[in-house]
Amino acid sequence: MADPGLFEIMFSLRSMRKLKTDPIPQDVLDKLLAAGTQAPSGQNTQPWAFIAIQDPATKKFVQEKYDAGIKERFGKFSMDKIGDDTTEKRTTKAALHLSERMHEVPLLLMVCGKRDWPFQTLPENRTGKAPPNYGAVYPCVQNILLACRALGLGASLTTTHRLHEAEIAERLGVPDDYGLVVLIPIGYPKGKFGPISRTPPAELTHYDSWGTQTPPG
Amino acid sequence: MADPGLFEIMFSLRSMRKLKTDPIPQDVLDKLLAAGTQAPSGQNTQPWAFIAIQDPATKKFVQEKYDAGIKERFGKFSMDKIGDDTTEKRTTKAALHLSERMHEVPLLLMVCGKRDWPFQTLPENRTGKAPPNYGAVYPCVQNILLACRALGLGASLTTTHRLHEAEIAERLGVPDDYGLVVLIPIGYPKGKFGPISRTPPAELTHYDSWGTQTPPG
Repeated sequence: MADPGLFEIMFSLRSMRKLKTDPIPQDVLDKLLAAGTQAPSGQNTQPWAFIAIQDPATKKFVQEKYDAGIKERFGKFSMDKIGDDTTEKRTTKAALHLSERMHEVPLLLMVCGKRDWPFQTLPENRTGKAPPNYGAVYPCVQNILLACRALGLGASLTTTHRLHEAEIAERLGVPDDYGLVVLIPIGYPKGKFGPISRTPPAELTHYDSWGTQTPPG
Repeated sequence: MADPGLFEIMFSLRSMRKLKTDPIPQDVLDKLLAAGTQAPSGQNTQPWAFIAIQDPATKKFVQEKYDAGIKERFGKFSMDKIGDDTTEKRTTKAALHLSERMHEVPLLLMVCGKRDWPFQTLPENRTGKAPPNYGAVYPCVQNILLACRALGLGASLTTTHRLHEAEIAERLGVPDDYGLVVLIPIGYPKGKFGPISRTPPAELTHYDSWGTQTPPG
């Protein structure tokens, strides 16, 4: 398979939440994980680990906890009451679709983050139980999402499992020194990749000091 | 310029800390920022903003704070006492090189993260002043690093400015609702891109439950 262009990939990387049930071949999964582990991390600590969840009963357990989290976070939506007239509503509808059918997705990839990372001097880690190294894990997650798109797989970045993280960690047998940072449901997409809606970067960019939004010179 | 392959980019994306002083053309910077803003974020909130620092006096201010942070974090190294015999030592030496010459780098790109993000139900945000949305900002950062590599620019992901974040935020005039999450020094590299050293993904991958490291079936 040809190696598709980076910018072409980035500019068509829609979150794909409606996925087919066809399984993911092992060699494809291996390629996703190789891409993830190429990400940079502080002092090359690589503080991540992966759980590839494909067993039906385990997927169902995770789906139920995830869906409970979605209902807690967003309230009890009635699918019938959500229209199709805005991007936000379409996204919400797709998110609910995924939440209720996550156990039918062929691969739930849990990306774990190690807690005992070296930079305990950072303000957010000075007290209490150290959180997982979110910063270090997300570049790895983004590489996996880009690799999915390159290989024709649909995926989305989800975090709502964290509302029931302790129960899921117990079920999966994850040791205490790892947090369950991101859950990526992966499958061949039913829809098509395409352009995505974003704020123009110029509106978010400042030059030398905040508020100067015209490039110098 | 041809759009280079995604996997080729990922597998040769070394952190580049020795950089030339040649300026970055505005159209190249625009392309980096466009890549960054393609990243996904929860409910498409895009909670990031950029400060492109190119003014010599502002770069010098940031360099001094950054270098002070490096010295606090790693102690006072003597460059002479660090050998060249291990990758770790080479990396440390390059990090010190960058820290002491950061004001000579043509572009210091500060990636800011908005604090008032929607998911205050996550455990790490339940108390105190909300941290910036690290999770949301890092996929954007990774896209920028990949775009740098694709365009022949050297870059590295740094966070040590956070040890003096308040002073830098004041100098740059950043409002309180944004944190200074990642600082990316960017320039044309003196060295060459190439393969990077990583743990084989199979050693970090579990199937269905932690400890099962053989794929099923």
